Amino acid sequence: MKGGKWQHGVLIVAGGSGSRMGAEIPKQYMELEGKPVIRYTTERFFNFDPEIRMVVVLAPGHLPFWEEVVGCAPELRRVEVETGGPTRYDSVKNGLTRMEEVEFVGIHDAVRPLVSTATIERCFRSAELYGSGIPVAEMDETVRWISDEGHSEHLDRSRIRRVQTPQVFRYSLIREAYDRRFDTSFTDDASVFESLHGEVHLVEGNSENIKITTPTDLLLASLLIRP
Amino acid sequence: MKGGKWQHGVLIVAGGSGSRMGAEIPKQYMELEGKPVIRYTTERFFNFDPEIRMVVVLAPGHLPFWEEVVGCAPELRRVEVETGGPTRYDSVKNGLTRMEEVEFVGIHDAVRPLVSTATIERCFRSAELYGSGIPVAEMDETVRWISDEGHSEHLDRSRIRRVQTPQVFRYSLIREAYDRRFDTSFTDDASVFESLHGEVHLVEGNSENIKITTPTDLLLASLLIRP
Repeated sequence: MKGGKWQHGVLIVAGGSGSRMGAEIPKQYMELEGKPVIRYTTERFFNFDPEIRMVVVLAPGHLPFWEEVVGCAPELRRVEVETGGPTRYDSVKNGLTRMEEVEFVGIHDAVRPLVSTATIERCFRSAELYGSGIPVAEMDETVRWISDEGHSEHLDRSRIRRVQTPQVFRYSLIREAYDRRFDTSFTDDASVFESLHGEVHLVEGNSENIKITTPTDLLLASLLIRP
Repeated sequence: MKGGKWQHGVLIVAGGSGSRMGAEIPKQYMELEGKPVIRYTTERFFNFDPEIRMVVVLAPGHLPFWEEVVGCAPELRRVEVETGGPTRYDSVKNGLTRMEEVEFVGIHDAVRPLVSTATIERCFRSAELYGSGIPVAEMDETVRWISDEGHSEHLDRSRIRRVQTPQVFRYSLIREAYDRRFDTSFTDDASVFESLHGEVHLVEGNSENIKITTPTDLLLASLLIRP
């Protein structure tokens, strides 16, 4: 923090209800090798910048889960909490209002605990240079494209990138884009940014940076996280 | 087998050298819960049809690996062996020459031990009805498309399918397609088929049907395979 301004901020979006897991506990609070998923996620950002401003956006009613996490992790006491809205778009929009003193803000899925510090660095560096930094990974499977008429054709996978988070932006630019009216073309933060400011800048993500949405993902993450 | 003809055949393509794994043993011969990967793969097809005609296409020099597998699995003694060529295309083309008495043939990656019997059934059934059956899965990540000029744009993931194996065809049709000259547009067996016969028919694959290409994939497969 310099002169009342933070250089880096991150919005940890933890709005998911976990219904796809078929479990009581939302996936961001499930344990991986004895520690809740979301603690790995927050640690990765503190490793990048111990001074980072962090806001966690929680689903309504999930405060008790978060408080249990903080109870075992005193370093999380200074993390601010915001309540999510009915959609991810609303949640991010709410969260961004808390970041006014931040120069560059990352928006990250709570259920991506395996983002590397190098990925986080590349994203923020790109946002400093180009206004945005979106981590992507190559596609390692053969893919086909389904046309309007339901026909399928081969698609060149070397042209495809899988999009990860954190999606990092100059705060003033992403805030401006989120202040406009919702559009159905908004599928992630990059697309909101693009609706106003043009193309985003892509950087290399890391292959382990998976999004935990199924029980299989959780198993895989526990394997990847073991030291 | 009816009147000298087999209803079902499968070509197990095991030509990979395993160099991406950074290991001595090619991945199709690595152990998963005490059994080599390729034995799971062959079992899935015998579960589907105990009478299936099976040909394994091995990389040159890999016969000792295969013989070690067969040494512990007497049911594999009747599997025929063919030597692969310099590319996957050559390997499949060689293998297909062994399938002349087969009506419907599947072409399957040896390193996909987690294909389900239901997926195999759907593929053969589709080949019987439409000449081809290609198993696919939905795309569960946000994706972007890189243009000729290096620009990127959002791509509608609901239109994308990830292609798995076995790719199953009426034998006469795929053989005819493979008998033509190689073309750089041939990225998988479906694209070879399409070059002569038009669009392939897609069926639902199964999400666990991963291709084992990295050490992480092997770990994930061992978790998925546990009973």
